[in-house]
Amino acid sequence: MEHKILYLSYDNVKNVDLSMAEVIKAVEKGFMEMGNGRVEMPPKPGIHPGEGGDNFIHAMPAYIPAMKSAGIKWVSGYPGNQQKGLPYIAGLLILNDTETGMPLAVMDCSWITGMRTGAASAVSAKYLARKESSTIGILACGLQGHTNLEAMSVLFPLKKVLAFDPNKEQSKKLAEYASKKFGIEAEIVADPRKAVTGCDIVVTSGPILKVPHETIKAGWVDEGAFVSCVDFDSFFSRDALSEASKWTTDNLDQYNHYKNNVGYFKQCPEIYAELGELVTGKKAGRENDKEKNFAANLGLAMEDMAVAPLVFSFQKSERKRHWDVALYVIFYLFEALKEDIRASKN
Amino acid sequence: MEHKILYLSYDNVKNVDLSMAEVIKAVEKGFMEMGNGRVEMPPKPGIHPGEGGDNFIHAMPAYIPAMKSAGIKWVSGYPGNQQKGLPYIAGLLILNDTETGMPLAVMDCSWITGMRTGAASAVSAKYLARKESSTIGILACGLQGHTNLEAMSVLFPLKKVLAFDPNKEQSKKLAEYASKKFGIEAEIVADPRKAVTGCDIVVTSGPILKVPHETIKAGWVDEGAFVSCVDFDSFFSRDALSEASKWTTDNLDQYNHYKNNVGYFKQCPEIYAELGELVTGKKAGRENDKEKNFAANLGLAMEDMAVAPLVFSFQKSERKRHWDVALYVIFYLFEALKEDIRASKN
Repeated sequence: MEHKILYLSYDNVKNVDLSMAEVIKAVEKGFMEMGNGRVEMPPKPGIHPGEGGDNFIHAMPAYIPAMKSAGIKWVSGYPGNQQKGLPYIAGLLILNDTETGMPLAVMDCSWITGMRTGAASAVSAKYLARKESSTIGILACGLQGHTNLEAMSVLFPLKKVLAFDPNKEQSKKLAEYASKKFGIEAEIVADPRKAVTGCDIVVTSGPILKVPHETIKAGWVDEGAFVSCVDFDSFFSRDALSEASKWTTDNLDQYNHYKNNVGYFKQCPEIYAELGELVTGKKAGRENDKEKNFAANLGLAMEDMAVAPLVFSFQKSERKRHWDVALYVIFYLFEALKEDIRASKN
Repeated sequence: MEHKILYLSYDNVKNVDLSMAEVIKAVEKGFMEMGNGRVEMPPKPGIHPGEGGDNFIHAMPAYIPAMKSAGIKWVSGYPGNQQKGLPYIAGLLILNDTETGMPLAVMDCSWITGMRTGAASAVSAKYLARKESSTIGILACGLQGHTNLEAMSVLFPLKKVLAFDPNKEQSKKLAEYASKKFGIEAEIVADPRKAVTGCDIVVTSGPILKVPHETIKAGWVDEGAFVSCVDFDSFFSRDALSEASKWTTDNLDQYNHYKNNVGYFKQCPEIYAELGELVTGKKAGRENDKEKNFAANLGLAMEDMAVAPLVFSFQKSERKRHWDVALYVIFYLFEALKEDIRASKN
């Protein structure tokens, strides 16, 4: 009954050193499959341990036949964790063998979750932003601000980032990251409008709220801009949202569930398309340079399962390489020993 | 970001050597909580990799506050696996810290699945069978035949087992197991009726079928008997089922899903009670010695999560004990060494 399962800690996953370009490619391929109706992704149920009801642990299963990927992410969100020095979001991803159902690997899900969320924004931007977009505004500069910037920098010729955060330390960190890692001119702004007006791409990545704080008003978003609402509609007033030419999401079923049963997106326009419909060309992406296009992606199990097999196969081949080296060294030592014995005999 | 997670293989879990009595106690406590509406157990979604559609991998999350248990079982069923020398049912269970959501342990789920299924039958029998039940018939003598026999032997003064299986090797194995492990008189029967008529308890534990093979006919089940239909209604004709005084299940929502959406239980009577209602006394169990009572338990995430914390805490304390012994040995050797040094100085 013993069966080998590879366990990958956060560091193991991170050290595979998958590039953002590879993650974007995998996530886009996943959306292509989804747009063609070839992904199985049931609704994600959850449990809510502890007092207060803000804690959750969600099950996110998905199967992508074309990527030979099947598995589940079991991910918790405990708002009180940060006070305890623990991550807000934590969890494990199980990758299964599609041929036998047997578990192949258990891995920490944090690295993949962060990267695939940025990658999904970039895939939306590929179809909804102007190709020559070079100025990006980031509002709220935490982890998702960073990964979204990284992902956009893969697909667009970014030259300038405007960083806004109520916590100035955060915007400073993002500005340093932008200039050091990507050589992009970075400006820290105290007025949120400066991270919106004049930008080709805007990313809002603050806390997700049921009642939006409505910081961004009508007229702020430029004609021709693309906005990735990583924090749903939390940053936008109703009037600002009504300017959207194309309001899109990654999954309509899940969006409607959030809207109708949970209480998000109350002030939002009708969905124009799912991301899979844009990737497959079933619906047109940007059609002119004046559209103000939006993506409110929710984060899908499919995205995790599009990336997990890459991590698994890289990690495996890396291990194999180590074994090859080790076997070579043993062989070499053995040969040397034989030589010694031969020499001592003479 | 590094965080310790205990991994328990099948052997690690089995070697904790939790007794069936302990498992039954935990499962009954779980049903008590469920009957009182204090368990969170969302519907179990699944994916279906591979051709043909008979493969599944199901997510089974549950939270039992009173047992400080939260987690998920991610379990696959691949009918073709047995030909490949792999188990039909396989999977992992993740146990989380209810206070922080962080994963505490990942364990192979096979041992727990087998034991808790037997235990649930025994809990049903505790409320629906006659206390002095001493003769048990087992139809289909695989793993579940064995664990159901073990579970019933904990709660009832069993004296005789009648073992029926189309594969005689299987019934022979069960008969040997019964006599060697429990000192119960065991008889292998070629006629299935002999494992039903004359029995106080009957367990049917063959393959689960949408169209029952209807081996067991009206009049076979004795007055006063209890039947645990581990394989749903696969063994029963409609007329035999219509004799049921009380037809029960472990979870009504899941039962109705199987009946209305999947196509099982088509010929079955109305559900009299959920097991939680029997355990809490909200509905009466057996009320006289003439009732023919039935349980068709489906297997719940709650049952897994009732048992998992026991395995985890035993395993942890076991490890601690090993460390204590190891430290003692090191201390002893160190003392002996000091003694030697002292002696050599003199």
